[in-house]
Order: sequence, then C-alpha cells, then structure tokens
Amino acid sequence: MSTPRTPPPLAGGAQGADALEPLLDIALGALRTGATARGGPLPAGGPQAVAAHLHAAAHPVLPDHGTGPETALRTLIHALTQGAADPAEPLCAAHLHCPPLAVATAADLAASALNPSMDSWDQAPAATALEALVTHALAAEVHDNGDALITTGGTEANQLALLLAREAPTTRGPVRLLAGANAHHSLTRAAWLLGLPEPVTVPAPAGTLDPAALDDALTELGGPPGTFLVAATAGTTDAGLIDPLDDIADLCAAHGARLHVDAAYGGGLLFSDTRKAQLHGIERADTVALDLHKLGWQPAAAGLIAVRDPHDLDALNHRADYLNADDDTDAGLPDLLGRSLRTTRRPDVLKIAVTLKALGRTGLGHLVDQVCDQAQQFADLIDAHPAFELYDTPTISTVLFRPTDATDHHIAHVRRRLLTEGTAVLGRADLDGRRWLKATLLNPHTRPADLTALLKLVHEAEEAEETEPEKAETAHTKGTTPR
Amino acid sequence: MSTPRTPPPLAGGAQGADALEPLLDIALGALRTGATARGGPLPAGGPQAVAAHLHAAAHPVLPDHGTGPETALRTLIHALTQGAADPAEPLCAAHLHCPPLAVATAADLAASALNPSMDSWDQAPAATALEALVTHALAAEVHDNGDALITTGGTEANQLALLLAREAPTTRGPVRLLAGANAHHSLTRAAWLLGLPEPVTVPAPAGTLDPAALDDALTELGGPPGTFLVAATAGTTDAGLIDPLDDIADLCAAHGARLHVDAAYGGGLLFSDTRKAQLHGIERADTVALDLHKLGWQPAAAGLIAVRDPHDLDALNHRADYLNADDDTDAGLPDLLGRSLRTTRRPDVLKIAVTLKALGRTGLGHLVDQVCDQAQQFADLIDAHPAFELYDTPTISTVLFRPTDATDHHIAHVRRRLLTEGTAVLGRADLDGRRWLKATLLNPHTRPADLTALLKLVHEAEEAEETEPEKAETAHTKGTTPR
Repeated sequence: MSTPRTPPPLAGGAQGADALEPLLDIALGALRTGATARGGPLPAGGPQAVAAHLHAAAHPVLPDHGTGPETALRTLIHALTQGAADPAEPLCAAHLHCPPLAVATAADLAASALNPSMDSWDQAPAATALEALVTHALAAEVHDNGDALITTGGTEANQLALLLAREAPTTRGPVRLLAGANAHHSLTRAAWLLGLPEPVTVPAPAGTLDPAALDDALTELGGPPGTFLVAATAGTTDAGLIDPLDDIADLCAAHGARLHVDAAYGGGLLFSDTRKAQLHGIERADTVALDLHKLGWQPAAAGLIAVRDPHDLDALNHRADYLNADDDTDAGLPDLLGRSLRTTRRPDVLKIAVTLKALGRTGLGHLVDQVCDQAQQFADLIDAHPAFELYDTPTISTVLFRPTDATDHHIAHVRRRLLTEGTAVLGRADLDGRRWLKATLLNPHTRPADLTALLKLVHEAEEAEETEPEKAETAHTKGTTPR
Repeated sequence: MSTPRTPPPLAGGAQGADALEPLLDIALGALRTGATARGGPLPAGGPQAVAAHLHAAAHPVLPDHGTGPETALRTLIHALTQGAADPAEPLCAAHLHCPPLAVATAADLAASALNPSMDSWDQAPAATALEALVTHALAAEVHDNGDALITTGGTEANQLALLLAREAPTTRGPVRLLAGANAHHSLTRAAWLLGLPEPVTVPAPAGTLDPAALDDALTELGGPPGTFLVAATAGTTDAGLIDPLDDIADLCAAHGARLHVDAAYGGGLLFSDTRKAQLHGIERADTVALDLHKLGWQPAAAGLIAVRDPHDLDALNHRADYLNADDDTDAGLPDLLGRSLRTTRRPDVLKIAVTLKALGRTGLGHLVDQVCDQAQQFADLIDAHPAFELYDTPTISTVLFRPTDATDHHIAHVRRRLLTEGTAVLGRADLDGRRWLKATLLNPHTRPADLTALLKLVHEAEEAEETEPEKAETAHTKGTTPR
C-alpha cells in the first residue's frame, strides 16, 4: 500500500452531508461575492478582459500540488460568478437561457452527491423508478399512451427524433428530413450526424413554415409513404413563433410523412390553461422535443423527447452484458440502456420531479403566463416609443425590435456595445430581410421597471454608437476559443 | 397581466445564495435521513419493492397544485437517497460508478445556480474561458499540442471519435471500425448511430485485443490507407485490462489506419507517477476518450475527448446566426458551437476545474494509487481463500473472482441475492468461457476491513444460494422499466 493519507471527503454515504455543509457555505459565499463584484447582468470589458481575469484567478488549473478544497472553491466560483451572464438578472435576456429556480438547484445538489447513473438499475434503484414516474407524467401532457425519454436538451431530442424516424418499421429507404427555414439548426446537424440525405428546406416567409410550400415540396419529392420526416417548430429561436401544427399534421397524414414537432421552447405552454391551445395539433406528432431548461426553469440539462407510439423506442434496444444481461432482465431488473444513447447518465429527473411536485401544473403554468405577459408589456413599450420599431406582437415571450431606420451593422454593433459595457445581454435575429434585436423574456421576477430600463439602455447605446462607433481594432482579434 | 403573485425564488442573481441556503439545509437533511433509513449500500427488496416505495413517496409527481418547495425537496430527496445504490458505501462496488468528492459536488452546485450555457459566449463569458484553460491542461496530459472537448462521458467521446474519423480529410470512403471483442459497447452503437458500415470485431482471447489478429484483419480487409479506424481500450469494462497500445499504434501506422483509444477508465492512470507508464503509446492515438466520472471522482457527467491534431475538430464547425454570427466571431466573440454536438450545455468544467486545483496532479494520482492498491489487496484476499478463485492480478482496480466450481447461473443468482438483500453491489463478467463476479474498486475510503467483509458476504450469499436458490417467481416479472 502507498503511504497512508486521508483522502478528501466524499459527498455520499453516512458522512456526506456533514462534509458538504462547510463546502457549500464556501460556495454560497463565493456566489455572493462574485455577484456583488459583477454588479450587473454580465462582466464588462468583453471576451479578452473576461478571459484575462479568469486566467489570473484560475491558472494553473492543474498544479502539481493542490490548493486544498476551500481555496479552490472560493477562487473559482467567485471568478465564474463575477464573469457570468446571469439569467437571473432581468437585463440578461438574449437567449432561451432561463434563470433556474432555487428549488430545482437545491434538488440538483442531491443528484451530484448521490451520483446515481441511469444506465443500470444497480446504480440507480430509486432514480430508475422516479424517472419512470416523471417521464410517464410528462408524456401524458402531450400524447395519450405515449412515452418520453430524458435528453440533454432539444438538440438531443431532435437527433433522437431523426434516429427514430430512420429506424421506424414504416420507414422505406433513407428517410429525408423536411424542415422549415425557421427550424432549429440542430435538425440539419442531426441529419448530417446520422448520415441521412441532405434535408429539404421548406420556405417560411412569415417566420412560420408555410403549409402550401410544404404541400408542394412533398408533392414534388413524390416518394412513397414512409420516406419523409417533417419537422415543425413550436417556438422558433428567432421570434418564438409557432408553426400551424394542425395544418402540417393534416399534410403529413395526406402524404404519409412522419411528423416531429420541436417544442423545446413552446412546450412549456402545455402547463398554462390559457395558453396550451396555442399548441393544438401537437398531439398528432410522432415525436415532440421538450425542454424544461427553457420554460421550466431548470438548470441545464432537462430535455425530453415524447413519442406517440412507445414501440418506436424499440429501435434503441441495446444489450451490454455487464449492464443488462438477459437473465438479469428476466429476473426483473429494469433494462435502462434503451432509454438513452448515453451510458453513464446523470439523474436530471430529480430536479424536474422536485420542481413539478413543488409548483404543480398550476404553479408552472403561472410562471409561463408571467413571462408571456411581460413580453406583451415590453412589446407595448416598444410600440409606444418613437425611436423603435416592433417586429410583431409576441407569440410566446420573445420580442423583436429595432431602432427605427438603423442598418444591420449598426444593430449588431449596438448589441455588442451592451455586452462590452456589461449592461445588458440581448440577442439578434435576421427576419424579413432586416436585422432585429431580440429580447427573450424568461425571468418571472422581471418587473415593469426593468423593461423600461432595458429599453432606455438600448436607446442610449444606440445613440452612443452613432456618436462613437464600435472600435475597429476589436475586429482584429479572430474569435477562436481563448487560450 | 395575470393576478400578481410572487414567483418562487431563483438560484442566481444577488439574492440567489440567500434563497438557496435554507433549501440546501433541507436537501442536506434529507440526504442524512435517507442514508440512515437505507443503512447500507443499496435498499433491500429488489426492483418491485423499491419502485413501490418510491411511488408512495412521489406520486403524484405532477399534481395540479404543488406541495411547495420544502415538502417536495424533503420527500423526494429522502426517497431517492433511501433508494440509492450509493458508491460512497464501500460495499457498492459493481461498476465504473465512482463516489464523487464533496469538493466536486459543492462546485457543481454553482454550475446549477448560475446556469451558464456553453453554446455562446454571451451565456457563459467566464465559463468559456475556464473551459478553454481546463481542456488545454487536460489535453496536454495526453498529447503535445493537442486539444480536448468536454463530453457527457466515454460514450459521447467514442461517438465523436468515430465522427471525426468519418469526417477526417484523410479518410477515404466510409470509414470502417475495427474494435476488439473486449471493447465498450458504445463503439458499435456509435457506428450504427453514424450510419457507418458494420464494425469488424477483432479477437481478444486473453481479454485484450490481439495484435496478430488485428494485423490479420487489416491485411485481409486490405483497404487503402484512410479506410479504417482501430479502437483500442485502456481499461476494459469487464476486467480493467489495457490493450498493448504501442503494438497497436505500430500496426495502425503500418496499415494507414486511424487509432482511437478508449481510456474512459484507464485514463486516470495519467495522474499517477508510478502508473502512467501503463498507458505508454496512448500519445500516438488520434483520439482518446477520457472520463473523470470514473478515476476522477466527479459527479456525472465529466467526459472528454482528446485529439492529437486540433484541426480534426474543424469537422464540428457549425453556424447558427443567433449564436455565432460571422460578424460577432470577427469582432472577437468566441465561437463555441464547434466545441460540442450539443447546443445548450451545462458547464461540467467547473467541478472538474475546482477538483484539479484543489487536489493537484499529485493528489489525484494518490487517489488512483489508493484504489489500485485496494484492488491488489482484495485480489490477495481472494487468492488466499479456499472457496474462491481469482481471475488474475488486477491491472487497474477491477477484481474478478468466482466461487470455486460454481455454475454461471449460480454466480448470477449470488449477485442478485446480494442486491435483493441490500447488502452488496457487485458486477459480473463472462470471460474465458466462464462467469465471474466483478468488484470495481473506486472508493479511496474503503478500508481493508471492508474488503474482508465483502468477501465474507459473498461467501455467505453463495452458501445461502446453495441451500435456498433464487426464487422462481422473480423470473415472472418481465424487466421493463417500472411504471
């Protein structure tokens, strides 16, 4: 044996909580000091300044001899927090990047501490049972008698949708994807990954997939039934729009095409009594991508794919004797490998389950309603402001707007100016042949005053940009990952 | 606006830590009570009893009206802990399922609280810089001037290795995988996923890939250079064996084949001064799968793929204007989409960075040495015991053994008996035409007395199984995921 030395404490076992307690105090302390040091939605200075600051705190990240847990935790969490774009700050509103609920985050700690792995029952006995309960409950929000798998997000759910289409018994030959020009980039990337034919892009001139264009495309391609997978979107990344799901489902039925709905964003509307009607037709999809790290307020990752016919999942059946030997399965040990393409798998189900149970459908639906209402309120502010143009009434919680008469370049510069100032995080979208600023409202704590302040900041940045345009030298630093 | 109602608190922002503090107290309390209620490495009773108990605590998991955060956290974490197979318990030693360090787990909390998403700089400014530092440092443990990406585990790293081979400029036609019969199941699954030709299985009669058989296979297949990807293993799942990496690298060079080394298990030896020589030759691989949720004591997920030539990663370059528009990249915003096939991506780098900095290479290497030494000690115990047969001297920290003269069925029953009793979690492996019990030692806190106790338990279970064999009725319940 090597020289005896006490190893650092573990998070699990009978003493795990006692070992965690003082370390969590340090982590919470560093979250506090880091947020104070940041003092806004993101750090000022832009990528080079942030990287330099992080480097000063973290280097060397793999020393020969360690600093001990306290210093490492305090230093790195403080630096990460000081340099975060924190979605809990109301002016951090660019992306489908939600601020997680404290209850979900606290639950996620237990997932890390116990470290169940969802690839065999004997690594995750109760977590296996909990995942079965939760996926069943969430599947029932979409389909009668369906099933659902947990994924790392909408991207993996979209990949699985293509894979299940490729492998479906009803599929004839290589399945071809038809997706709107408004669809998420992960769909075409998944087709490439899976070795499928080049996808067909269906026009979406008004930001939603045009059923007439889809009908034309399916007619023109003219394959036999079971050749095509149509992907519709419920909540586009750019504008939060919802494709006409019922019309698209009718066309899929008429042409014998499979239907996938990417509802990674819009799926959250299912929890709202007043808004779930916006998703009418979703239940006709063969597969649906959902994502509770968007309108579900979970820390990443919390994705799902819902399938109408549970037998579709048979395509994922997979044996590895060390994990699911036939005689173990026959003896009653649940067989988990067919529930994911991953092997080791974190129990993301725990934080989801705790959140669902804590808030209930009504509580979650209320949060959805709040951010959708905020978006309407922000749209009203923009519409009333002489210096800004509104793209359209928001469908979910995304608001597109632009300074009146600004060029596309100017708008990109305004966005980057806000980032470099550290004052606001906004997104961008090119639609209708023009560039727009994008606010994705996902923070239920955002107040009307925050929305007013956000618009004021954009206005000021816009005027500053006119006076003193973005410096040319930033364009010299090619944007590869910093080292 | 809907009726005003205060939404539940967030984990981030200036008030996040204050909101988390009382909820973390509840979570820690439930981890304590759950561990006490379990009182061993896993719950007794088998899958049906565990599922029934979990159901009683968790149902309904999506009520109309929620229970509030305290009740949900307390109830579900207690139930999950009581029903866990906890790798921090020394007698939970079946799989490559490590007990996470408290320091890594505490760090992971901050990842959940801040929720940076690694798909664009403006969702993760400091996390982007930290990931660059850490992947650079870990890449340097394998290759000079290489690069590394963070993955969800060895499975995704193996998938990426196949994808990079498929897309490499030097690859001619569809790349064919040659993997040992001892290789991880995820390699053939990845070939299926990516639409590659049926892999070739190379014999591994002694548990490691046979170089002569590989030479024969490459000669017989006789494709041009750039047609084949050879996958070797450093740390097999069944026995923890390491393929002869240098010999295999020589053959790959001679035949113009690409080389991938799946070092998800064995990669941890790189941290040990005395053991890293066991991986000699790994630096010649084009790609290497690593996994710090095995010999790195991280909560899942903490995988990596190291690549010798960073240009291989160009195959992952991908544009989505809302995340990495060309003009944003030109203006210096790091472009992250090419660092993963996922879009939203949890910063698993934080817990890794904190652990590396806290322990240093020496501290991690010492943990590796400790579990390898334990394995040798357990092997010695078995070898000295008249009722047991040892498979071989352990290479890493896996020990295979069997009751002398037992049948394969008997050994499977003994394993399940221990699971049902809730007394020990052991794995199984079929090698040399016989079935073996498997202990994978990954807990640095395991003491010699634990190893003695484990062997005694197996001996007792083995004798009980002879007296009263596994009941037939368990075989009636088909092992699908419980509902």
